[in-house]
Amino acid sequence: MTLTPTAPAPEACVLALSDIVGAAHVRTGPDTAKWSRDWTGLYQWQPRCVVLPASTAEVSAVVTYCHDNDIPMVPAGGMTGLTGATQAEAAVMIGLDRMRSVRAIKPDAQIILVDAGVIIDTINEVAMEHGLVFPLSFGARGSAMIGGALSTNAGGSNVLRYGSARALCLGVEVVLPDGRVMDLMSELRKDNSGLDLKHLFIGGEGTLGLITGAVLKLSSEPAVRATAMIGMDRLAPALGLLNRLQEATGGAIEAFEYMPRTYIAKHVDKCGGREPFDDAHPVNILVEAASTRADDARADADGTPALLATLQGVLADAFEAGDISDATVAQNEGQRTEMWTRREDAAEITFDRHPLIDNDIALPLEQVPAFLDAVAPRIRALDPGSEDFIIAHLGDGNLHYTVYPTRSDAELKDAVKEAIEEVVRDFGGSFSAEHGVGTAKLNSMTRRKDAVALDVMRSVKAALDPKGLMNPGKVFPNA
Amino acid sequence: MTLTPTAPAPEACVLALSDIVGAAHVRTGPDTAKWSRDWTGLYQWQPRCVVLPASTAEVSAVVTYCHDNDIPMVPAGGMTGLTGATQAEAAVMIGLDRMRSVRAIKPDAQIILVDAGVIIDTINEVAMEHGLVFPLSFGARGSAMIGGALSTNAGGSNVLRYGSARALCLGVEVVLPDGRVMDLMSELRKDNSGLDLKHLFIGGEGTLGLITGAVLKLSSEPAVRATAMIGMDRLAPALGLLNRLQEATGGAIEAFEYMPRTYIAKHVDKCGGREPFDDAHPVNILVEAASTRADDARADADGTPALLATLQGVLADAFEAGDISDATVAQNEGQRTEMWTRREDAAEITFDRHPLIDNDIALPLEQVPAFLDAVAPRIRALDPGSEDFIIAHLGDGNLHYTVYPTRSDAELKDAVKEAIEEVVRDFGGSFSAEHGVGTAKLNSMTRRKDAVALDVMRSVKAALDPKGLMNPGKVFPNA
Repeated sequence: MTLTPTAPAPEACVLALSDIVGAAHVRTGPDTAKWSRDWTGLYQWQPRCVVLPASTAEVSAVVTYCHDNDIPMVPAGGMTGLTGATQAEAAVMIGLDRMRSVRAIKPDAQIILVDAGVIIDTINEVAMEHGLVFPLSFGARGSAMIGGALSTNAGGSNVLRYGSARALCLGVEVVLPDGRVMDLMSELRKDNSGLDLKHLFIGGEGTLGLITGAVLKLSSEPAVRATAMIGMDRLAPALGLLNRLQEATGGAIEAFEYMPRTYIAKHVDKCGGREPFDDAHPVNILVEAASTRADDARADADGTPALLATLQGVLADAFEAGDISDATVAQNEGQRTEMWTRREDAAEITFDRHPLIDNDIALPLEQVPAFLDAVAPRIRALDPGSEDFIIAHLGDGNLHYTVYPTRSDAELKDAVKEAIEEVVRDFGGSFSAEHGVGTAKLNSMTRRKDAVALDVMRSVKAALDPKGLMNPGKVFPNA
Repeated sequence: MTLTPTAPAPEACVLALSDIVGAAHVRTGPDTAKWSRDWTGLYQWQPRCVVLPASTAEVSAVVTYCHDNDIPMVPAGGMTGLTGATQAEAAVMIGLDRMRSVRAIKPDAQIILVDAGVIIDTINEVAMEHGLVFPLSFGARGSAMIGGALSTNAGGSNVLRYGSARALCLGVEVVLPDGRVMDLMSELRKDNSGLDLKHLFIGGEGTLGLITGAVLKLSSEPAVRATAMIGMDRLAPALGLLNRLQEATGGAIEAFEYMPRTYIAKHVDKCGGREPFDDAHPVNILVEAASTRADDARADADGTPALLATLQGVLADAFEAGDISDATVAQNEGQRTEMWTRREDAAEITFDRHPLIDNDIALPLEQVPAFLDAVAPRIRALDPGSEDFIIAHLGDGNLHYTVYPTRSDAELKDAVKEAIEEVVRDFGGSFSAEHGVGTAKLNSMTRRKDAVALDVMRSVKAALDPKGLMNPGKVFPNA
């Protein structure tokens, strides 16, 4: 990610890019502040400049210029990533901030065509005007752009029902590392016309090209939601409970989020949140179902919608069976908001303490409890005074497993990461669930990813970006 | 796909492969009959030999031998493809017939791990022993193998709810064109550890490597199904009806299949099928909903399950609104089977007449009626005496559009295909929906696929298979 000797002087580069997008849209020096660090503050850098094209044609011209002049490029969306994937020391950053058009919405077909710079929440708002929703939902959805969300294959709390960003995307438009525009803006539910190349760019973290547009799937807006907090003594019965909830609701469970006691306590402490139950429980789960069915929205004599009654019925059976200790349902939108706020404060209360070692890991669904039992003593052995902090998309087997170590040295950090990864691997898991690789997990890629797969990834990168200028130093560890 | 000068004599090749898999499992001459033509009879060839490895290690050894000796290889599953993707003149065919193990099933996590040679129906049968289903469903599911189904990203009648083969696959094991084994057998719901390479091999039609194993998603077995035939005067209201059915059932619609009057008439004529209605309707739609919900399975005083009542309610409203002309629901499994048999006889009654020009095309959902109005006169102009024959997965915008021309010359065939493709393109569709490209659609790839995308596909092919030995001549048209 250093300047190559043939690159033009920074001033010439800024002038050339200004010719393409207008001088007002090339930021340098202190005006690059917003693009010079990530949300966590763990990564900081100084880009050569930030260029803000307004159209795919301008992106293409910018990339062509950088390609022809051997200048490294780093795509940038809402800057909400957590793995250092937008580090851009001395590189030209290409920001999507001016690519904000909703190109079209087709309500009957339940799709929307957008520029890559459109904010996730905005897509959802436009969809809701037509009785539809865009169900990608994670904490940063108010500032994350769809281009970045696709590039990292973002997940979040509704993956259980709707899949990750990848599953919500029918087509993309991509500017390749040499500036060519590839039009894969398919609006089709089936399209087997050769390799489905969009899957290289979704989750490619901008290393193979820059997504400039997308065709996204929408869903009907639910007529009713049912939301509850569940208290449990132990995690083991949770998967069976989830399966029973899915059967009873016909697959309507949208979220199944795990918060251990330590999480609840810290939320009460730091955010002034209320305890979910009178008694403290080791395991706390937020569950939400949603349905478009009129019969699910219909209220009984007590005003309880049928979907909520169904949820309560399954929970009552689970209580009888001794699987759960307590449950409380949201009786109104205010109570629902309180439950979700508790969950969505996660990033803030996780990153409020340093040093921290954050791990975004995935386990096979049935292995989560055994994994948690196995990993804790491994970390204690390395740093007896360390503390764990966990929040999990349990329905996807996705744990955000943070360790607060007693020391901040890089050796300890890496040793803890490696220990966690080792247990993750023993249980058939992944060291990266939804945040991606960026620069944060290059070591993990080297250590844990199938060596043949790594080699194939490098071959694909070399084939599409032979100069290695597009988001260099990310995703692919050195051979 | 011709022998390279350096390749060993056919006898030496057979001996070497026999050393790997045993002489009984290398078939030559007349013993290759099963692998020397496709199901349609449109493609025929003579392979050098057919080798039947019993394990991934044996596949790897076979591929390594062919790679090192510059011998073209063609993977073969159940031989049910429709696009000539297993044509293998003088090549070594690698058949999956002995790779039949179900490696593991994990009912709580709702996944199954299988060898690539396991038949689709078998996967479903094993799943059903655990109260689960594998919902990939198409006419050839009794003989198609999962390796082939993944390689072509097979679709079928349940894509509407469960997605194509791609959406049902969490992980794959692949033997690369040089014989290396790549282990991507992830059992995870989220896994962002670098490029998601499985998507190159799913739908890659065996051109980039040979899938030897897969991790597949299962679903809970429905407690109740509701199935109906709908008669309509015109197609335009169908999409709105589908959306209302989805809303009313909470997304429980599994199939929404269109049969025009000509289809029904031919089915009655050729298969002795019954008319679905007393009156003949231009538009006939098979709809099926399925639910795991106990309340959907509960019958009213008349014995009507609630799900069927919901379906009937929506259809009654549609009748009132003038959107549909008639509807009949399946009252028992026998009536349901009759409805499905009518649909699943499609391949047989399509391919019983020659010459034929078959087209597997996809349109944006809302464009299907306008497309059909636009395409018919184009075909008539080329061959006024030709007849159309249509069967469609309407819920996915996927039409199997067959033309029976009055002449069998290649020029007319290609002219008709090109005319159809042109209209397909005008409406934002694809010339290939679910059958893939094989050799049948190489011209279409050249004419219609984004030129930059084609170039990227060729780059990927060259990166992964620099010798061009793995299923040569398929998918990628010459530059």
